[in-house]
Amino acid sequence: MNQRAIKARVPAGGTRVSTITRGETVTSAIPAVDTAGVRALLERGRTLATPVLRAAVNRLAAPMDTVAAYHFGWIDVEGRPAHGDSGKAIRPALALLSAEAAGAAPEVGVPGAVAVELVHNFSLLHDDLMDGDEQRRHRDTVWKAYSPAQAILVGDALFALANEVLLELGTVEAGRATRRLTTATRKLIDGQAQDISYEHRERVTVEECLEMEGNKTGALLACAVSIGAVLGGADDRTADTLEAYGYHLGLAFQAVDDLLGIWGDPETTGKQTWSDLRQRKKSLPVVAALAAGGPASERLARILADDAKLSDAQLAHFTEEEFASRAALIEEAGGREWTSEEARRQHATAIQALSAIDMPAEVRAQLTALADFVVVRKS
Amino acid sequence: MNQRAIKARVPAGGTRVSTITRGETVTSAIPAVDTAGVRALLERGRTLATPVLRAAVNRLAAPMDTVAAYHFGWIDVEGRPAHGDSGKAIRPALALLSAEAAGAAPEVGVPGAVAVELVHNFSLLHDDLMDGDEQRRHRDTVWKAYSPAQAILVGDALFALANEVLLELGTVEAGRATRRLTTATRKLIDGQAQDISYEHRERVTVEECLEMEGNKTGALLACAVSIGAVLGGADDRTADTLEAYGYHLGLAFQAVDDLLGIWGDPETTGKQTWSDLRQRKKSLPVVAALAAGGPASERLARILADDAKLSDAQLAHFTEEEFASRAALIEEAGGREWTSEEARRQHATAIQALSAIDMPAEVRAQLTALADFVVVRKS
Repeated sequence: MNQRAIKARVPAGGTRVSTITRGETVTSAIPAVDTAGVRALLERGRTLATPVLRAAVNRLAAPMDTVAAYHFGWIDVEGRPAHGDSGKAIRPALALLSAEAAGAAPEVGVPGAVAVELVHNFSLLHDDLMDGDEQRRHRDTVWKAYSPAQAILVGDALFALANEVLLELGTVEAGRATRRLTTATRKLIDGQAQDISYEHRERVTVEECLEMEGNKTGALLACAVSIGAVLGGADDRTADTLEAYGYHLGLAFQAVDDLLGIWGDPETTGKQTWSDLRQRKKSLPVVAALAAGGPASERLARILADDAKLSDAQLAHFTEEEFASRAALIEEAGGREWTSEEARRQHATAIQALSAIDMPAEVRAQLTALADFVVVRKS
Repeated sequence: MNQRAIKARVPAGGTRVSTITRGETVTSAIPAVDTAGVRALLERGRTLATPVLRAAVNRLAAPMDTVAAYHFGWIDVEGRPAHGDSGKAIRPALALLSAEAAGAAPEVGVPGAVAVELVHNFSLLHDDLMDGDEQRRHRDTVWKAYSPAQAILVGDALFALANEVLLELGTVEAGRATRRLTTATRKLIDGQAQDISYEHRERVTVEECLEMEGNKTGALLACAVSIGAVLGGADDRTADTLEAYGYHLGLAFQAVDDLLGIWGDPETTGKQTWSDLRQRKKSLPVVAALAAGGPASERLARILADDAKLSDAQLAHFTEEEFASRAALIEEAGGREWTSEEARRQHATAIQALSAIDMPAEVRAQLTALADFVVVRKS
């Protein structure tokens, strides 16, 4: 994606600034999402995967089992049972559909769903510590609630457990699935390394941002969509094509996340207003706005360069209006529109990838519905 | 190991206190170690494994490749080539002998040697951060030289790389080897969890200490001794028996380490005098001395309980004589002698395990020589 390509998509005027309303995402290209159907799929993923995930976590030696149970939202910090928000569970839903795409029963995908969830949560535990994030899903993060050492240790344990859950199946397919999971995990780690290094840089290109998001979000989502199929005996070509769907779905997911990180409604996202701006995240809308050129883009660049000289404490004292004016500049420079279009492009590429594989019509429809849901979600 | 068993081995008198000399370990039961032969074995392990290890580490994205190269002692913190001490390389030597024990060429064990080294170093990177250790092999640790985030991230990357190096072989044997490595890694993490939890406890039993050391040191050494054989096509029974040798060798290794951690000669160990006492480590000589009962044991318990009330800064101001008097009490209570005997017992058990497997006489002799070396080493 070069600057010209971005510019071409940026509307000439800046009149949309006054019409910012929170919660708007990219609904226009997706006429009607089967929300009830998607909710049922997510619920099925949770219902089948959670007991196996809990049994795996229970294998950890004390106190790691407790710390992990807290992280997953199953207990509170006092050890009392809790029913915390444990995320949208898109990955388990995908892993089960993945098995069905290969003609296997959804249950065949369960160890894959559990392994992917374990790797995802290993990365959350470590990333929260590296990034100094104190809150996740409305609760203290593990390093904050327990200690940095426990966050490192339990993260390591979940990573090892992910491999164990797959390899103890003892099949050739499990070995292939573990190899794909390992590749995805390496990319996940590469993405976190890029994310950290970008924090210290003044300028990040759109290409660099997309590469980082592909590593951090695309790779593991891709693995979720191939792992059930591999466990069900799919060949590498089928698995690779499913991964292409998952990778682009991941990029669409992340583009929407980046939109919600600035313009999301705090009541539905559970995050602060202007969350990503408060954290100085060089997310897609920001890098696209900076790459677009023109008066708004240049004004934004000057303001963000000045902001970079402020401490985190000073930034935390900004008023709502100060963040809103930055968000307005990002939008005026075309960063919001470009990111919405990017989500649609990635969604379309994901759907197109699906057409290259034979699979039951029902499974194809469900994978399509999940992709639609990812793009229109509000939280 | 109950208290009575320990007491039975503790000499009645306390006259050995005045004869403390550094560098004494358990030489009596091992008449003559083929030091030149062992050095050649260690050198072969390094020569065959290091190029593959370096190629694997070079796959890491920047700056993780650089940070890892620093950790392994290949470059200094300015990025200049270095020839730092990268450890004794016992694990790679064992992995190659392991392949030969199964009748395969030593080269067959190389991916196993590399994978085990990667896991070992992943654990060092994370443990140094968790433990707040600022020095390793005479240089700043990674979290100190770079940042805590890099120590976490590069540790994660080495762990993932370990699985990748094995699984990309694409064989059934590689899947079995990865499963054994995963089991060992889980134990390694369990051991670190125990080590951390013991720090906050006033009393640790000898059994708990041995369990922790079996997890932290025995499990990965066991894996090093089975992984080459598994890659060479050995069956599970042979691999399990080789692991029994490796596990007990690991416990012997750790018992010697615990002796050197108190009575080792700083010039040969590269550590401070009374290193483990300075770090308040509840190592085998300490827990055995506390478990022994009797006047010296009780005096030691009172002194250590008082020490526990001091800050680390206060402890750092202790004179050589203050540490020496604590070491003398540990010896008087029988902790030193018990730990020396424990090293010999574990050594004997390791050698005995070998006798249950058919293998070329030359390989058996080399595994025996390595075991002897582990117990008589001075650093």
